[in-house]
Amino acid sequence: MKMKSYTEIVVRYAETDQMGVVHHAVYPVWFEAARTDFSAKMGITYPQMEEMGIMLPVVELQVHYLGSARYGETVQVETCVQRLTSARVEFAYRVLDQQQRVITTGKTVHAWVGKDMRPMGLRKHFPQIYEKMLEAMEPESQQPGK
Amino acid sequence: MKMKSYTEIVVRYAETDQMGVVHHAVYPVWFEAARTDFSAKMGITYPQMEEMGIMLPVVELQVHYLGSARYGETVQVETCVQRLTSARVEFAYRVLDQQQRVITTGKTVHAWVGKDMRPMGLRKHFPQIYEKMLEAMEPESQQPGK
Amino acid sequence: MKMKSYTEIVVRYAETDQMGVVHHAVYPVWFEAARTDFSAKMGITYPQMEEMGIMLPVVELQVHYLGSARYGETVQVETCVQRLTSARVEFAYRVLDQQQRVITTGKTVHAWVGKDMRPMGLRKHFPQIYEKMLEAMEPESQQPGK
Amino acid sequence: MKMKSYTEIVVRYAETDQMGVVHHAVYPVWFEAARTDFSAKMGITYPQMEEMGIMLPVVELQVHYLGSARYGETVQVETCVQRLTSARVEFAYRVLDQQQRVITTGKTVHAWVGKDMRPMGLRKHFPQIYEKMLEAMEPESQQPGK
Repeated sequence: MKMKSYTEIVVRYAETDQMGVVHHAVYPVWFEAARTDFSAKMGITYPQMEEMGIMLPVVELQVHYLGSARYGETVQVETCVQRLTSARVEFAYRVLDQQQRVITTGKTVHAWVGKDMRPMGLRKHFPQIYEKMLEAMEPESQQPGK
Repeated sequence: MKMKSYTEIVVRYAETDQMGVVHHAVYPVWFEAARTDFSAKMGITYPQMEEMGIMLPVVELQVHYLGSARYGETVQVETCVQRLTSARVEFAYRVLDQQQRVITTGKTVHAWVGKDMRPMGLRKHFPQIYEKMLEAMEPESQQPGK
Repeated sequence: MKMKSYTEIVVRYAETDQMGVVHHAVYPVWFEAARTDFSAKMGITYPQMEEMGIMLPVVELQVHYLGSARYGETVQVETCVQRLTSARVEFAYRVLDQQQRVITTGKTVHAWVGKDMRPMGLRKHFPQIYEKMLEAMEPESQQPGK
Repeated sequence: MKMKSYTEIVVRYAETDQMGVVHHAVYPVWFEAARTDFSAKMGITYPQMEEMGIMLPVVELQVHYLGSARYGETVQVETCVQRLTSARVEFAYRVLDQQQRVITTGKTVHAWVGKDMRPMGLRKHFPQIYEKMLEAMEPESQQPGK
């Protein structure tokens, strides 16, 4: 089963900079908002995970800027899980403007850790979440890492 | 004719601070997003105004914090025009949490200026916008300042 | 004894908006950085207070915008304690540009609360901090509220 | 000639999130502040470049998070130019905490474009800036790309 989530973002004035477009450091914030949305659609919200003692700090971030977003626009963030192991999860994103042009692509890698920020085996300790994440992955990448 | 606009805001993780709640400097950003929404509902968008050469810089900001918003919540920002003159406009806001409790109130005062940041008489130069704004105001405050 | 603290802030590109100047919601963040600096100069850092279980959430914010700051500038935030009670403390700020012009004035009111966000009597529970704060206040306003 | 610039950053309360550490989207903002500082030390400020009609939008961003920064800390951002062509420049960063531990590494790739956001040959149109940048690069990487 394949799952792609689309999250609408209305560009805020505060998100622009003096170049007249959205500042590049805003995209990771949008990715995060899209992740929140993705996890809710997947059936387990990010706040619920935090309550269960699961933290998902970002360990790696990559963004490619192909175009720009402007104040007054509504963009869409497409989100999917690209890779999953018991230790990590990788999300991929594409930001689409109103003409469906891809203006940004990105990925974030997260570690499954507990409140003490130490790694915990997701598969062992939270098998349901592991399964849900696995189901959400695209068919061609359904072989999770070891 | 009375107009109150309601804008939904999904709290972002990045908006929280180490106190575990939304950082106080985020509310002015929400007010601004709500203003954008208000002006669109009023029939003339903020980006359109900027294209017409109308700028609306904030000259005064006031916020009262009564409660707090948390990640995982969707809040509502209630917005209305409280006072209008040819030189200034004042918006008032209330942020409501999911239980409809008012967690923040605020106001912003803006100057009607041109691209050169100098005052321009709104009523004289953009009578339609002045009229639309006037109509949007609440009945009890429909007497604009001089 | 009178105490005014001056905190240098180098304007960041990310802090500008498409109007070409620093976004108005950035000033509360600068005030906060200035408060941190003020408390360190006063002899007790904000992080130390948090460790002692003292929280100082903002309950009121006021900003007046008189001019604007630009990327490439270094501004100064002048900070002082304006009013102190066992329940609250009020800071006042002035942001000065490189020509010493006041571009923004502001104030924040904070509640002395514990980690449970409930009020605690500062004077009774942390008399040393109360005294330090009192000393930092300006002569003409050394009569703390009740 | 090798040039590494070190920029001090005092962590702001607003930069933390509910995990109790600096939010991951803050690092690109610090990198940018460090770039500003780097270019000033190199002898040509970023605002000067913008005045000359040179824009340097970010086309790629990479961050690796190895540790975390906390409110109350002062961190250092080490910055250097890693690669330079007439079309692009690549900066590398390391964020060091007060114990000199590397908590984050990153890189940004920028395009040399004009105000119209179209590529312009830096070497041809602004040879002095090209030379300054070249000089700032580390010895082992002093062969710029084609």
